[in-house]
Amino acid sequence: MKKYDLNNIMQMDSFYRVKLINCLSGFRMPVLIGTKDEKNGENLAIFNSFTHIGSNPPLFGVIFRPDSVPRNTLANIQTTKLYTINFIPEHLIDQAHQTSAKYSPDTSEFTACGIEAEYRDGFPAPFVRESLVKIAMELAETHHIQSNGTILVVGRMLELNMSDTVISEDGFIDFEALGTPGMIGLDAYMSFKKIKRLSYAKPDTWVKEI
Amino acid sequence: MKKYDLNNIMQMDSFYRVKLINCLSGFRMPVLIGTKDEKNGENLAIFNSFTHIGSNPPLFGVIFRPDSVPRNTLANIQTTKLYTINFIPEHLIDQAHQTSAKYSPDTSEFTACGIEAEYRDGFPAPFVRESLVKIAMELAETHHIQSNGTILVVGRMLELNMSDTVISEDGFIDFEALGTPGMIGLDAYMSFKKIKRLSYAKPDTWVKEI
Repeated sequence: MKKYDLNNIMQMDSFYRVKLINCLSGFRMPVLIGTKDEKNGENLAIFNSFTHIGSNPPLFGVIFRPDSVPRNTLANIQTTKLYTINFIPEHLIDQAHQTSAKYSPDTSEFTACGIEAEYRDGFPAPFVRESLVKIAMELAETHHIQSNGTILVVGRMLELNMSDTVISEDGFIDFEALGTPGMIGLDAYMSFKKIKRLSYAKPDTWVKEI
Repeated sequence: MKKYDLNNIMQMDSFYRVKLINCLSGFRMPVLIGTKDEKNGENLAIFNSFTHIGSNPPLFGVIFRPDSVPRNTLANIQTTKLYTINFIPEHLIDQAHQTSAKYSPDTSEFTACGIEAEYRDGFPAPFVRESLVKIAMELAETHHIQSNGTILVVGRMLELNMSDTVISEDGFIDFEALGTPGMIGLDAYMSFKKIKRLSYAKPDTWVKEI
């Protein structure tokens, strides 16, 4: 086991450090965020910082790097307050990854990357038609992280669109059936297999497989 | 595809909703957070909200629910400012899950759950001896999420302990070699397999496998 102190880490090549530190945060689920700008232009971008904030009410967070590519998404969310979260089907991984390219603000990534948009029930922001889980979101609050200038955007789930056949009796979602990929770092897409589910832990008994 | 509006979701059984909404945030990597209280007592708890905040400097976040089990961890971090992040080896999944039980504040989860503590280089917070990646962290800032009372704790990485043989030339970590499990929701542990790595996306070319 090797020891890297902060000095060693800060002296690493910056591309190397970005990959290493991104990898250290482990598995994540990339999602596509769909927005509209104030001129009604569509925007779609991949994010790998989708985070659970709470269930009552249902809240999710996303971390935005102000100096990174998908800042159009942040500006659009701040202007329109509404956005969509779309799970990525495995056959759209390449197209989804391509949305992270620095397209000009007036380019729709739906068109540029070959992803079909869908509008549902009058919600103004675009969904991804082929996505098997499509969530309508509303901006709740933003937090500015002082340490590095990133921004945490917290949103409320307004509407969930998905098949109920992949939801088990207790609310668990069968991701293997959905075929949604996971991600490590900024560029590695992963498939998953369940090892086991464990019971709710209590001090006086030992966890067991459920 | 079924549509659930906010009203449908809020009327769900609360255990069902908690599982469903936790699942919706997708794959995550559970980690064990080690702390000490002001009386020098050890605490260890599993968290599944470990999040990348930035690489320059290296920053990670964790979401704490004030009304949930591991609030000792939050209190200890706020008091001592120092904590450890430990990846979970696959053979310790049950023990790691067991740390989420509501043990009394004066119980060490290391002892109660059969996980060996390790102290390194004078760092006061305990590491997990069998963990293959052990990170020393210092509290940087906290953010109170108004929408539901949760707290985002952002910390700076002070030291990284891991084998350099699982880090590739470009900084990518070979998680398959590490054998660290992923997680879905609150109770499902997953193994995973790489589908592919994709090149850095640019507007004028199409992504390709690397």
